[in-house]
Amino acid sequence: MTNKSFFINKGPFSLNHLASSISATAYLNGKKIDIIDHKIMVSDINTLEKASSNELSFFTNTKYVEQYKESRALACITSEKFLAKAPQGVFILIVDNPYADFARIMSLFYPNSPVKPGISKNAYIHQTAIISENCEIAHNVTIRSEVKIEANTKIYPGVYINDKVQIGSNCIIHHDVTLSNCCIGNNTIIHAGTRIGQDGFGYAFDNYQHIKVPQIGRVIIGNNVEIGANCTIDRGAIDDTIISDMCKIDNLVQIGHNVILDTGCIIVSQVGISGSTELGKYVVVGGQAGLSGHIKIGDGVQIAAQSGVMQNIEAKQIVGGSPSLPIRQWHKQTAILKKLSSRERND
Amino acid sequence: MTNKSFFINKGPFSLNHLASSISATAYLNGKKIDIIDHKIMVSDINTLEKASSNELSFFTNTKYVEQYKESRALACITSEKFLAKAPQGVFILIVDNPYADFARIMSLFYPNSPVKPGISKNAYIHQTAIISENCEIAHNVTIRSEVKIEANTKIYPGVYINDKVQIGSNCIIHHDVTLSNCCIGNNTIIHAGTRIGQDGFGYAFDNYQHIKVPQIGRVIIGNNVEIGANCTIDRGAIDDTIISDMCKIDNLVQIGHNVILDTGCIIVSQVGISGSTELGKYVVVGGQAGLSGHIKIGDGVQIAAQSGVMQNIEAKQIVGGSPSLPIRQWHKQTAILKKLSSRERND
Amino acid sequence: MTNKSFFINKGPFSLNHLASSISATAYLNGKKIDIIDHKIMVSDINTLEKASSNELSFFTNTKYVEQYKESRALACITSEKFLAKAPQGVFILIVDNPYADFARIMSLFYPNSPVKPGISKNAYIHQTAIISENCEIAHNVTIRSEVKIEANTKIYPGVYINDKVQIGSNCIIHHDVTLSNCCIGNNTIIHAGTRIGQDGFGYAFDNYQHIKVPQIGRVIIGNNVEIGANCTIDRGAIDDTIISDMCKIDNLVQIGHNVILDTGCIIVSQVGISGSTELGKYVVVGGQAGLSGHIKIGDGVQIAAQSGVMQNIEAKQIVGGSPSLPIRQWHKQTAILKKLSSRERND
Repeated sequence: MTNKSFFINKGPFSLNHLASSISATAYLNGKKIDIIDHKIMVSDINTLEKASSNELSFFTNTKYVEQYKESRALACITSEKFLAKAPQGVFILIVDNPYADFARIMSLFYPNSPVKPGISKNAYIHQTAIISENCEIAHNVTIRSEVKIEANTKIYPGVYINDKVQIGSNCIIHHDVTLSNCCIGNNTIIHAGTRIGQDGFGYAFDNYQHIKVPQIGRVIIGNNVEIGANCTIDRGAIDDTIISDMCKIDNLVQIGHNVILDTGCIIVSQVGISGSTELGKYVVVGGQAGLSGHIKIGDGVQIAAQSGVMQNIEAKQIVGGSPSLPIRQWHKQTAILKKLSSRERND
Repeated sequence: MTNKSFFINKGPFSLNHLASSISATAYLNGKKIDIIDHKIMVSDINTLEKASSNELSFFTNTKYVEQYKESRALACITSEKFLAKAPQGVFILIVDNPYADFARIMSLFYPNSPVKPGISKNAYIHQTAIISENCEIAHNVTIRSEVKIEANTKIYPGVYINDKVQIGSNCIIHHDVTLSNCCIGNNTIIHAGTRIGQDGFGYAFDNYQHIKVPQIGRVIIGNNVEIGANCTIDRGAIDDTIISDMCKIDNLVQIGHNVILDTGCIIVSQVGISGSTELGKYVVVGGQAGLSGHIKIGDGVQIAAQSGVMQNIEAKQIVGGSPSLPIRQWHKQTAILKKLSSRERND
Repeated sequence: MTNKSFFINKGPFSLNHLASSISATAYLNGKKIDIIDHKIMVSDINTLEKASSNELSFFTNTKYVEQYKESRALACITSEKFLAKAPQGVFILIVDNPYADFARIMSLFYPNSPVKPGISKNAYIHQTAIISENCEIAHNVTIRSEVKIEANTKIYPGVYINDKVQIGSNCIIHHDVTLSNCCIGNNTIIHAGTRIGQDGFGYAFDNYQHIKVPQIGRVIIGNNVEIGANCTIDRGAIDDTIISDMCKIDNLVQIGHNVILDTGCIIVSQVGISGSTELGKYVVVGGQAGLSGHIKIGDGVQIAAQSGVMQNIEAKQIVGGSPSLPIRQWHKQTAILKKLSSRERND
């Protein structure tokens, strides 16, 4: 692979070891293989198209079925339904969730680089801040009064951590992040340039003046959260803005004051969520979608990219369009519009 | 309140003092109270739902009427029309503009923290820069040649202020802001990560080359402006980009070269305004709306979230949709579409 | 001009010299002028509206025809078709591509400021980094191990350059940019706050957990690329994310992992391109448009602002709408909708 320059490959590993680690059932040329020869080594992982005869790949998206059928990989992780189309001469590793298991194997080849404990003498750290053991604090980091940082957390250069902010253990805070008025759990990653805890956007209009409404809430971020680059998450006006455990937020997302995301939400890039809106568990919001303020989105709701959501949505609904509709209705609408606009003449 | 850790409460204040400060008319159990007992003290402000028997709240949004009716607050600011539904045992303070007056009272409890004058010895300040008295300049701030900064302005770490930039008095420039080729008025706040004054996006296409058009204008920002986090405001190509007094701009907003915002515009998060477009006074642009270049938007226009505006709009119009239409027409359109798409079968 | 404070005017130049430099044919009061008097000097460039009797302007957008007809400029660059409407007393310089030639003349008056070679002693540079001659490296720049930077490149304060990143010659990297896992060509400009090379947004959902998929690809950026402020460009998951030569990207753009932009694409502000989508040569994507993942956009395609593109598009098509349609069909659709919604009553 050409990428070796940036990431260090901890391989090779024996195919047998890798297959065992994900409890895969192995096939070769349509026949089940009970024990894979221990001498067969996997040097690396790669894409279906590029994997060579000592590399492992995976197949889940039928768009790439031709690349699967013609793959020259040593082995390929996939699901049982694709066994029939398996290429000859390639070890096929069948698992229930091929993408998750490929991710696990990638993590064997390319584990996260460990924290290198140490506090730069060129960091600006207030004497009342408490930093636990094994943290890595880079130069030009600002850590103000009464900040608490738990063990094994890594802070990149240029990060600004305002008074009394709390950060859990095993977190990674990337270059130039701004943290104010917030509490962050464990194992949470925040990418470069994200701004957390600034004033929410609140004004009262009075006699041709926009009176600034003080914003005295916080931002509470849970465990195992990942937040992309250049996002903005405003602190609450009175109550808090809450990002619960396991939420994953892409780049350039806007989260307004007092928004609440329950466990495991996925928020794709450039989404905007207006103030006081609440999302249930495992809600998925597609890219560039916008949600009005003061609405409630039920557990498991899926919102298509570019949707405009202005009303409450009940649990497990799938919606699309702006203003958003149930997804089937939206598809019907776009089909009708397409038909109308492809007629020879307007009536 | 749980937020005490981040913000210092300057209370308690007597309810009588607070009511007087906003010229409120007080009621209790439906009866007007001429003089509130001076011994009745308000310890804090809080939301309707959470306010306890020594806290003050407010009520303006009918969505929360149940919380109002069941509130256990000591007192609640609201408007006359909600007096009939007032909860028993709660002092009701009637004013013309409850939200504005609640903001004023919040500012009594939680005033802005004062500037702590001083210039860090770890700031990078050019010898020709002029910094007035009582400014607070943090470490790692870059201030280049001939920059002028007026009194009482606060600059957070990591801010970059390029040659000849001018900043007025009582401004707050947050962490990592970039200021180039711009002049900023008084009492203006710019949140973290916002970039002001970079090249506008201008190319001339010629023989399969994009020729870069030099951008030699400025960005002029008025007084009492607030600009959110991670925004981008490009400088003018020849003339200037102008953000007038009292404009309030949310996070992640894009303002192209030569855009002009007249007094008091409200620009919600993720809006994009293309080059040379002009907004009149007190225009409100909803989140994620986009405006084409070279158009004029009249005074007092309101543009719904996610609108796509491609043509001039006359003063005081309200528009929605993409392409945008007068709001009633847009509502009609979405209603018709909904009806079409909910029929049993497509015709 | 009022802008003199920020940009230094290298003029005056003789009109004859300027006209020759762009091979213009000159006219005055409708008559062709073979040789312009060498003593006629141009002091500056300006807009049509503001140009005074010793300044040069240009005219290409018919929206401004009244300003053209009434211009008091010394000279105006335009195309032949506008000769008939030329104002009296103004030298008219006719060229094939007036905007490109005006840009060239602007560059004579306002050339880029040269790099001032030197490496700040307050930069954080790893001993294994290789920085070629004549680079300008500001204070608070972080350059980590095995980074290579070619000649004449300028790095502004606060930039973070992670291990093994490569940057070509004559590049400008503005304030606070983050560069990780990327290789950048020559003559490329990256504006403030842009984040390049962070993890793509990839998770495998398994038993109510979002398993993070390691992202081991790179970002490859070509020559003569310009990338706006506060953009985010994720590195590839396995293969690379690629931004080819001469691509121009505006502010606040999101580029997902494994996206490929071929030569000369123009990506306007706030566009989002999802993972693994490929754009051909000279594709133009209007502001706030969104592209789904895993699709292919042919050479020369133009995508209107706010479009939602979910399917492959063949070369040279022009599309608009969400979901996107061929542009004529989209215009028809919006016309039909407008008509439906302007009827007196819904049927």
